[in-house]
Amino acid sequence: MAKKDKEFVKEITPQSEDYSQWYLDVILKAQMMDYSPVKGCMVIRPYGFTLWENMQQGLDRRIKETGHRNAYFPLFIPESLLQKEADHVEGFAPEVAWVTHGGNEKLAERLVVRPTSETIICEMYSRWIQSYRDLPVLINQWCNVVRWEKVTRPFLRTSEFLWQEGHTAHRNEEDAQEETLKMLEVYRDFVENDLAVPVVTGQKTDNEKFAGALRTYSIEALMSDGKALQAGTSHNLGEHFAKVFDITYLDSDGELKYVWQTSWGVSTRLVGAIIMVHGDDRGLVMPPKVAPTQVILVPIAPKKVREEVLPKVAAIYEDLKATGVRIEMDDREEYSPGWKFNEWEMKGVPLRIEIGPRDLENGQAILARRDNGEKETVSLVDLKERINTLLAEIQSNMFAKAVAFREENTHRTDDYEEFKKIIEEKRGFVISRWCGNSECEQAIKEETKATIRCIPFNQEEKPGPCLRCGGTSDRLAYFARAY
Amino acid sequence: MAKKDKEFVKEITPQSEDYSQWYLDVILKAQMMDYSPVKGCMVIRPYGFTLWENMQQGLDRRIKETGHRNAYFPLFIPESLLQKEADHVEGFAPEVAWVTHGGNEKLAERLVVRPTSETIICEMYSRWIQSYRDLPVLINQWCNVVRWEKVTRPFLRTSEFLWQEGHTAHRNEEDAQEETLKMLEVYRDFVENDLAVPVVTGQKTDNEKFAGALRTYSIEALMSDGKALQAGTSHNLGEHFAKVFDITYLDSDGELKYVWQTSWGVSTRLVGAIIMVHGDDRGLVMPPKVAPTQVILVPIAPKKVREEVLPKVAAIYEDLKATGVRIEMDDREEYSPGWKFNEWEMKGVPLRIEIGPRDLENGQAILARRDNGEKETVSLVDLKERINTLLAEIQSNMFAKAVAFREENTHRTDDYEEFKKIIEEKRGFVISRWCGNSECEQAIKEETKATIRCIPFNQEEKPGPCLRCGGTSDRLAYFARAY
Repeated sequence: MAKKDKEFVKEITPQSEDYSQWYLDVILKAQMMDYSPVKGCMVIRPYGFTLWENMQQGLDRRIKETGHRNAYFPLFIPESLLQKEADHVEGFAPEVAWVTHGGNEKLAERLVVRPTSETIICEMYSRWIQSYRDLPVLINQWCNVVRWEKVTRPFLRTSEFLWQEGHTAHRNEEDAQEETLKMLEVYRDFVENDLAVPVVTGQKTDNEKFAGALRTYSIEALMSDGKALQAGTSHNLGEHFAKVFDITYLDSDGELKYVWQTSWGVSTRLVGAIIMVHGDDRGLVMPPKVAPTQVILVPIAPKKVREEVLPKVAAIYEDLKATGVRIEMDDREEYSPGWKFNEWEMKGVPLRIEIGPRDLENGQAILARRDNGEKETVSLVDLKERINTLLAEIQSNMFAKAVAFREENTHRTDDYEEFKKIIEEKRGFVISRWCGNSECEQAIKEETKATIRCIPFNQEEKPGPCLRCGGTSDRLAYFARAY
Repeated sequence: MAKKDKEFVKEITPQSEDYSQWYLDVILKAQMMDYSPVKGCMVIRPYGFTLWENMQQGLDRRIKETGHRNAYFPLFIPESLLQKEADHVEGFAPEVAWVTHGGNEKLAERLVVRPTSETIICEMYSRWIQSYRDLPVLINQWCNVVRWEKVTRPFLRTSEFLWQEGHTAHRNEEDAQEETLKMLEVYRDFVENDLAVPVVTGQKTDNEKFAGALRTYSIEALMSDGKALQAGTSHNLGEHFAKVFDITYLDSDGELKYVWQTSWGVSTRLVGAIIMVHGDDRGLVMPPKVAPTQVILVPIAPKKVREEVLPKVAAIYEDLKATGVRIEMDDREEYSPGWKFNEWEMKGVPLRIEIGPRDLENGQAILARRDNGEKETVSLVDLKERINTLLAEIQSNMFAKAVAFREENTHRTDDYEEFKKIIEEKRGFVISRWCGNSECEQAIKEETKATIRCIPFNQEEKPGPCLRCGGTSDRLAYFARAY
């Protein structure tokens, strides 16, 4: 059987040699995912999915704390609904999957597999919303969506992916804008604090905004190869959808008004961000807050003392597990401690505990950190507390490291030649003045492959000349090559 | 705008008048769901979805405690994969949705929107499983599935529904059978303890087993109209799929063997069971363990004392909320207490707290139970403890009531005339002897619309004559008309 010969465990290509290959090597070897028989669709294996579950938990809590509730809308959207909002259909129609038959019968109207759910949700909101008393409507949905992508890359761009999409309706522009920015802030807080991935926040240009939105905002992260990744977006949809879907409410002043809407989402793409921000040539490095396994306990138990050592280490393991830490014990006989160390490092487990016969005699354990390789000896009495302290330290150290990398790789220039050189040779973010003209934006993209990631909120400098046309610019933009 | 005139809040049809209409009235009025523009697909609104989230939590915990991990497999299955297992394709092909185009291009091979994931998961298992050391594989998936149903009913049978599907692979028949029954027991424990829905467990007949399975087991519940509902199934798939998908492993004896597999699932159909087992003419009755809101606090605050009463009641509310109970406070000014009582009863909230100015003076609150309407006065000092005690009491009382109803509506006869009369007039479960012949089973179904729900594990009686043919029967079966 040829298939049985396939060797899934291969060495990891160094990042410096081929970053893309490193990425694929790492996620396959760590069993984060596997390719599926369906083009562009991947399988998320248990190790990758547990990470996603932990991420969901942290974000779902924040979404609920800000007053939203989850719901579920149909997977399928009738073609006629998708076509109601002109910009929206133009943006999405070229990349949707079409259902044409149910069982043996041809459908009277084709159905789209949702690429995003604005249209079907608006259809429902137009039934549910009558009065100002019904507002705001604050609903979120966790689901799968499909966009028929030509070029795919696991987690970063797949034909099917998992995400959450928030959809809200408000009385006026002010409330909708407040919600849009509130959820952007929720994303920033979640991504920086739970995933240890620093982000720049700001507004998208008209070219880059969501199909159908009035304004789009995003969080942008920098991967360790110097390319940017859009890590989440929040849209103020204005009254665009309300007008075509007839979502009106009777206001307290007796007037019938259109609602203002927002939508916002993050996806399994964030798993790619974790891998590319923190990973190294030895594999993954998982942020403790979302790591599937936070601590791996490896008993050092040579054959002759095995029966004496194992029960004692197992007791320590049970004790630690009861404290709620996500710990596993690797007591497999067929692998050496060194092999196990490598494997768990490759999987990115933040903290390793080694306990051998001599450690037991001395009432101690050895702790090894994945983020910086440091080792220390800890008394068994202090073990629980030290683990908690170290996990918190690792989390903040990972964030600090990523911030330092981003600072080092963020450049400031208004000189187009220098700009091109940086983008070509160093990559990273380049902050430059831009006149606001989308022809300039387009030309820069064509000439350098760099796009405007966002217009940051923080605009401290005075007006000056645009990077490319030299015309007056009152705003700085973050440029980068991006995934 | 005609749509705005639609009145979603209508009275509830009594169960005795029209049970089906009662069901639809209740779920629409309680905002559990709404119809969608896609035929056969519903929207699960926040109140219904929160119930589902609470159910997921209880079941997911049990699935993980028994050693399983979650993963995610693609929504789409290539036609050629679906067709590999003959019984399986015969069972599912007539009811699948077909994707024929991606973007503007026709696909080279049609894709099925998963009706269940055995085939695509088997394809992956054949890559992942090499050695006996890789076994067992214990994976579960929470996802949406699509079956193109001709006749649909919200929650009970919809074209798209949400479920979990477990898929496991084992070394031999014994391990697979053990897993199959273990998960059936997990379902029984979850449904009886968390949903307060009593079930009968047993094996399905060959006619009723899963397409492709060796043996199917199910849990069967009795709705309050006397019809049965299959509430969950667990399948021993034997080596059927392993043989067509070539899932082999090298055993410790050096031989290449096929794995034995299982699959098992429950779905949003269980929401329908909760509604139909516990609901009454005043609306829903939610089991406390999964109720979206466990306690509703209604301040009784006439206008002139409102400003004095509300802050005090709000403080009690915050205090109770901090204990972790799922409590809400209804301090809306525009509705009377009586209106609120009716609404929250209709939504099935297990426990209501009323606190008015005189109660505050006396340091007390009034508690009202949804399950039996009993009211009591409780000192504010004892409130927290009393709430916990009452929620537990309500949970067990609801279960006991449902068990009593099932007992009253379970009949034992081997007389076919009596059988027909019971099925026609009283419904409920009828336990009768069956010879094991599927022609008899089929004839009974045609003549009475009753099907064999399961062959219970408990077979205490001696052999006797088959209900219909009079031939020797060594088994009792549970018959009922079913959803």
